[in-house]
Amino acid sequence: MTPTDTARVLVQALPYIQRFADKVVVVKLGGAALDAELDRALAQDVLLLRSVGVHCILVHGGGPQINALMDRLGMTPEFKSGLRVTDEETLEVVRMVLVGKINRDLVATVNREAVEEPVAVGVSGEDAGLLVATPLDPELGFVGEVAKVRADVLDRLLREGLTPVVSTIGSDDMGQAYNINADDAARAIAAAMGAEKIVYLTAAPGLLEDVDDPSSLVRRITSAQLRTTVGRAGVEGGMIPKLQACADAVDQGVGSAHIIDGRVPHALLIEMLTDEGIGTMVTREPVR
Amino acid sequence: MTPTDTARVLVQALPYIQRFADKVVVVKLGGAALDAELDRALAQDVLLLRSVGVHCILVHGGGPQINALMDRLGMTPEFKSGLRVTDEETLEVVRMVLVGKINRDLVATVNREAVEEPVAVGVSGEDAGLLVATPLDPELGFVGEVAKVRADVLDRLLREGLTPVVSTIGSDDMGQAYNINADDAARAIAAAMGAEKIVYLTAAPGLLEDVDDPSSLVRRITSAQLRTTVGRAGVEGGMIPKLQACADAVDQGVGSAHIIDGRVPHALLIEMLTDEGIGTMVTREPVR
Amino acid sequence: MTPTDTARVLVQALPYIQRFADKVVVVKLGGAALDAELDRALAQDVLLLRSVGVHCILVHGGGPQINALMDRLGMTPEFKSGLRVTDEETLEVVRMVLVGKINRDLVATVNREAVEEPVAVGVSGEDAGLLVATPLDPELGFVGEVAKVRADVLDRLLREGLTPVVSTIGSDDMGQAYNINADDAARAIAAAMGAEKIVYLTAAPGLLEDVDDPSSLVRRITSAQLRTTVGRAGVEGGMIPKLQACADAVDQGVGSAHIIDGRVPHALLIEMLTDEGIGTMVTREPVR
Amino acid sequence: MTPTDTARVLVQALPYIQRFADKVVVVKLGGAALDAELDRALAQDVLLLRSVGVHCILVHGGGPQINALMDRLGMTPEFKSGLRVTDEETLEVVRMVLVGKINRDLVATVNREAVEEPVAVGVSGEDAGLLVATPLDPELGFVGEVAKVRADVLDRLLREGLTPVVSTIGSDDMGQAYNINADDAARAIAAAMGAEKIVYLTAAPGLLEDVDDPSSLVRRITSAQLRTTVGRAGVEGGMIPKLQACADAVDQGVGSAHIIDGRVPHALLIEMLTDEGIGTMVTREPVR
Amino acid sequence: MTPTDTARVLVQALPYIQRFADKVVVVKLGGAALDAELDRALAQDVLLLRSVGVHCILVHGGGPQINALMDRLGMTPEFKSGLRVTDEETLEVVRMVLVGKINRDLVATVNREAVEEPVAVGVSGEDAGLLVATPLDPELGFVGEVAKVRADVLDRLLREGLTPVVSTIGSDDMGQAYNINADDAARAIAAAMGAEKIVYLTAAPGLLEDVDDPSSLVRRITSAQLRTTVGRAGVEGGMIPKLQACADAVDQGVGSAHIIDGRVPHALLIEMLTDEGIGTMVTREPVR
Amino acid sequence: MTPTDTARVLVQALPYIQRFADKVVVVKLGGAALDAELDRALAQDVLLLRSVGVHCILVHGGGPQINALMDRLGMTPEFKSGLRVTDEETLEVVRMVLVGKINRDLVATVNREAVEEPVAVGVSGEDAGLLVATPLDPELGFVGEVAKVRADVLDRLLREGLTPVVSTIGSDDMGQAYNINADDAARAIAAAMGAEKIVYLTAAPGLLEDVDDPSSLVRRITSAQLRTTVGRAGVEGGMIPKLQACADAVDQGVGSAHIIDGRVPHALLIEMLTDEGIGTMVTREPVR
Repeated sequence: MTPTDTARVLVQALPYIQRFADKVVVVKLGGAALDAELDRALAQDVLLLRSVGVHCILVHGGGPQINALMDRLGMTPEFKSGLRVTDEETLEVVRMVLVGKINRDLVATVNREAVEEPVAVGVSGEDAGLLVATPLDPELGFVGEVAKVRADVLDRLLREGLTPVVSTIGSDDMGQAYNINADDAARAIAAAMGAEKIVYLTAAPGLLEDVDDPSSLVRRITSAQLRTTVGRAGVEGGMIPKLQACADAVDQGVGSAHIIDGRVPHALLIEMLTDEGIGTMVTREPVR
Repeated sequence: MTPTDTARVLVQALPYIQRFADKVVVVKLGGAALDAELDRALAQDVLLLRSVGVHCILVHGGGPQINALMDRLGMTPEFKSGLRVTDEETLEVVRMVLVGKINRDLVATVNREAVEEPVAVGVSGEDAGLLVATPLDPELGFVGEVAKVRADVLDRLLREGLTPVVSTIGSDDMGQAYNINADDAARAIAAAMGAEKIVYLTAAPGLLEDVDDPSSLVRRITSAQLRTTVGRAGVEGGMIPKLQACADAVDQGVGSAHIIDGRVPHALLIEMLTDEGIGTMVTREPVR
Repeated sequence: MTPTDTARVLVQALPYIQRFADKVVVVKLGGAALDAELDRALAQDVLLLRSVGVHCILVHGGGPQINALMDRLGMTPEFKSGLRVTDEETLEVVRMVLVGKINRDLVATVNREAVEEPVAVGVSGEDAGLLVATPLDPELGFVGEVAKVRADVLDRLLREGLTPVVSTIGSDDMGQAYNINADDAARAIAAAMGAEKIVYLTAAPGLLEDVDDPSSLVRRITSAQLRTTVGRAGVEGGMIPKLQACADAVDQGVGSAHIIDGRVPHALLIEMLTDEGIGTMVTREPVR
Repeated sequence: MTPTDTARVLVQALPYIQRFADKVVVVKLGGAALDAELDRALAQDVLLLRSVGVHCILVHGGGPQINALMDRLGMTPEFKSGLRVTDEETLEVVRMVLVGKINRDLVATVNREAVEEPVAVGVSGEDAGLLVATPLDPELGFVGEVAKVRADVLDRLLREGLTPVVSTIGSDDMGQAYNINADDAARAIAAAMGAEKIVYLTAAPGLLEDVDDPSSLVRRITSAQLRTTVGRAGVEGGMIPKLQACADAVDQGVGSAHIIDGRVPHALLIEMLTDEGIGTMVTREPVR
Repeated sequence: MTPTDTARVLVQALPYIQRFADKVVVVKLGGAALDAELDRALAQDVLLLRSVGVHCILVHGGGPQINALMDRLGMTPEFKSGLRVTDEETLEVVRMVLVGKINRDLVATVNREAVEEPVAVGVSGEDAGLLVATPLDPELGFVGEVAKVRADVLDRLLREGLTPVVSTIGSDDMGQAYNINADDAARAIAAAMGAEKIVYLTAAPGLLEDVDDPSSLVRRITSAQLRTTVGRAGVEGGMIPKLQACADAVDQGVGSAHIIDGRVPHALLIEMLTDEGIGTMVTREPVR
Repeated sequence: MTPTDTARVLVQALPYIQRFADKVVVVKLGGAALDAELDRALAQDVLLLRSVGVHCILVHGGGPQINALMDRLGMTPEFKSGLRVTDEETLEVVRMVLVGKINRDLVATVNREAVEEPVAVGVSGEDAGLLVATPLDPELGFVGEVAKVRADVLDRLLREGLTPVVSTIGSDDMGQAYNINADDAARAIAAAMGAEKIVYLTAAPGLLEDVDDPSSLVRRITSAQLRTTVGRAGVEGGMIPKLQACADAVDQGVGSAHIIDGRVPHALLIEMLTDEGIGTMVTREPVR
């Protein structure tokens, strides 16, 4: 790299760093096991961003691992229109896997990379009533949707310099727990926190014009355009809820929503601190 | 009750309330399922104390529940001199049960009783490096003892008005998790926080002169006297580690240590706010 | 008392303590000499309440003592419709007795009971223009009513941790002093301070349905009901101005007004910190 | 006056105003009735100084008025070596006159002159234990000397923008009141407050070389020189305790002590804000 | 001077000092060389006022010195309707003389008189965009008028205890500098700062009824009366822009505007701190 | 550039940004006219660094421009051992050129690049006594060296969000101005401020092993090694005072000193935010 190249990256990055200082960024990860090196790079990104004042909140899912434990316990997962039917016994398994295993592993990964003090703390949506849930559909049992986010719970942790890693179990007024979809919970948290950004890490480069052509990446799109696109043929099924959540997030006041490739090391940093970015950025108004 | 009786309770209680304001009290519960009514009364005590400025930290164990899940998974618990041999698979089960189940249930119980906002949050010793562990004995696998407590992690939560419920999983610098004895972890936390009190809820009235005579309750004892007593015949086996922890706690600067009967509703409140108390109080110096 | 009894008093008291923290309570005492033991108990109550953050303001009268000094000086008290005709010489005697004697004795009693630093300070309504007076009736001379209370004078003392003991001498813009009825001045102070409570200590159990039957105590009553009652036959004459002041106080925004038996030790504490109380509580709306 | 004269006064005054800002000045007045106009000028001086940040504390005596009331009550004042023998009945009279009459009149005078809010508040040495007294001599009864000044009581009033007017009744730990000499109490208060100045208003121009020649005024003198002078013949008897108090005050850390002529209107302002002053200034070191 | 005279000056001055504390006063000086003694007295006045909390801002001009340097450089000043035609070369000279010479000398004079730390700092209207300029007339070249004052620039310096000495060079958004009339810039600064006063130091006693009779000084006048007067015959030409600026200043919210005689030592102090003042005071409403 | 390249620059830069936040960096520029594009890039660097919390202070010289004005005024510069002999007339020219011209142009350049508010302010070493000077040598006239830096003057400007551009005129206690060498004044300022860095912008790549071979750049050197090097043959003459100043600066507590190539756009940013840097970095201890 020439001095000119280096200077260009720096000259671009500094205004973003200033703009994002003291802002909140919600980062959603899948539950599918990432490779250890990628995990390490993501943990570094979160800590580097924190070092310049950006408050990241990690939100995770965990479907495959839940299935695995159910299997070991001789239970059979049941789904209705893609959602896990959750009776009391299933709920207990979901909670143990999300809060007692995946969340723990993520907290450990971030803390292992910390240069000074460890800062990651696990948070369940039940803690201090963070995620207030209502049942989604009686047929699904204890599957909930977010009725309210107590944003001040996360605000208080951030104010104390802690980096929350959130499992998306909610609870109602009676203290009954519910299983909540992580993509949507991340969206609700970002909206309630007035986040600057929500970023979905996926196993694709972003939204593609042509799903088979990685060079057809859509770099910028408005929420209105996105809603049209989602209905169109050719969009990959697994991407649809994330696209929906992105459109909802920016329409609810989040600065921008991003779908980026979790398989590229430091994708989060590149997306946030360069003019071009690396994935798809969704905004309410067209970006000039 | 006569007005004189009522007045006496109030006149006694108010100076304690003033003295304990802004002080930390660590309360250790067993993992054995308490009856729901007792749980409710304990949650109320913690919230009532919080309402007058006393910061309670709950610490819990969970042996029986761990055994239950291991059993369902076809695993056989193994113990050496009373301690659970903990290989990687066992550790994962321990962590899921403590953090993902028992802690969750306690958090839910306290939050259900909250009059205004829910305030209980689950904390694992791994969060923000709260409990730094070192291996206790190579033969025991991932069983650790507390090398260091990052008291400021709990301080920050308390400062934000949150009530921590702590699972005693620790971790080392490499992020490796360890299973830690809850009685001892509670003691280490109380010492590191400069707590006013540590209170062990048990299934006995306290320390008894004669284990078969509940009226032989020892109300006050110094740590030096206690160390002598522990060695004596006739002390119930399960009580010994708690007695040890009490003596250690006060010698490490905790104001007083208490063993009280978790089966009496509101035992915590009575022990803390009356001159007589209800169980055994251990102090460094004889109380005048 | 059983642990259950004790627990019930404590469980009831703590929410009151939280609710009254940082609130103001105005306590009106008569000038009639109380017995030393009762005085001591009252001083203790005020100090205990202060220790948990309740700001008491004591207001006192002093008719009998004024008469006594006038008598020694060869002056003859004169009354019109129950109010003392107050010429310049009488005013000087009133001021000397209230400010220079009764107030002094009360301040001394509270300070004597203080465990740490003495905190009681005497305040006359003339100090920093606390009570602005206007003449009530030309025929009465220097008898005034309260035109305005400078609540910030007392706020400043409370903020500095001091407990004001108030003599009810007021003054007008020209610095002329006036003798003001203490029951009414206490009411005006409570209203101006936005007090949580005003409490009148009397020589009766409270408002009685049947003045001869102590068991006919009215525990709770609204200001509207009270105004009806006052007109009714059978209410003791000396009680009427206090009942009037109670109704006025709660209609002017004071949380509740109380008439309690100053002859029961610690009556103030019992009235404030138990569900049942000990005397009559007046509120604007019926208490559920 | 020419512009040059005016400019000279202003140029001299401003540095003093800066130097005295936020400093404490104790002003001692006699109990002998001053003429109303002089009182008014003094009250104005205190308020003008307050307007530029100087905190005045007024301290008063009251011998003649005490004698007058005793006389009316048929009591005979008794003195031993110039001090009033004070039995319980006498003490009650002293307290009523000082706290309930003279203090009241001074407070009223200052408040009457206030342009905005009234700021003067009466304070007895018993309030919040301001003046802790010990008996001076068993033969004198309840005559005390100052064992300790709780300076923070006055600090708190000053911090709240109030101007204290102090009656010099002290009390011991048991709450027993004592009559204290006002000249000496003023000295003790000034020393305890670390006052910038103590000023004694008298009926003389200051210390005179020749008591019959007003032009022989000593403008500046050190405490050491003063102690020599006091022993000399020709110093007026009534002046001696004040001179003693001045020497003691500066030796105990007060910036300077002043004896000025209370009969000259605005003498306080002139003494404090001009280079020449108007009376006698006592300092520890010679003024350059 | 008698004590009565001295007292009168002090009694008058103190309320002004209180009223002006923390207020801003803009003082405009001409560029004509003042005599060193007068300069010294002015510097003292500014520092004395600062010592009692008055924030002075000095604004200066400098016509004669600019002409002198132009002359040395062989340039010929050109004027149109009294304004200096300012090409790029002239602008450079103006800037060097105002910022690099006159401002420097004033800063040095004030700092030389400082008793403790030097506090004067030079400020050009270009610094932090203090004076935003727009061209006045294309024929005049780089002569500007004030489009906007960034008052917070001066506020920040004052807040830090610094005394600004302002040269009236402004700049536009492109960073182009402009020469701005100092009388008008001072007015704009005073209005933008919400100044208590603007004071013009001149070589006359103030506004005279009869320009040849110094005893015909107009002491007080409203802005409306002043605007009428300005149109009248007999007003000295050089005074007109200053009178205009005075009327504009008070109509734009400045408390009062003053024209005083810079040849009288300490004229600023006398004008500000005595009831009579020394020059002409302009207010919006008639002064009662 | 590949994502990997971009990520590497970012991953390197962020820790520096964190480390330098709230730190002071002194940047010394020569007086020789830089090309406008380079000036623009430097101004951007200063503003970008400010946007992430780095406080830059610019210090400038100006020899050639002084000579030019002296020439126009018919004056002949005279030098003794490389230093300008400075009589009163010369000093006036120096001051006008540095403060009234070069400083002005730099302030304008930075303010022109500002995205939001202009922040650059010109400061002379005379302002608030920033640079206290003593004469260097009687033969040189008003040439001074720095006796003391009042660092708080710059601290106050930085605290207010202003970016100081400093001309190196100093003054003594009498207010006499002195001409001070800019390289050395920059060093004194950096030392007094406890700066993180001092950076000299020059017309060379840095310190070269072989002055004719740009690839022989010394990237890192300790102050001790540097002092040896300076004495060696082959070091360019104009570089020697800068090298000396670098060694002195780090020995006086500045974190590091840098000599970089002012002809490379954004050299400041590259030197500060990359591991390799672009010029020569001097430290007290060898960098690991």
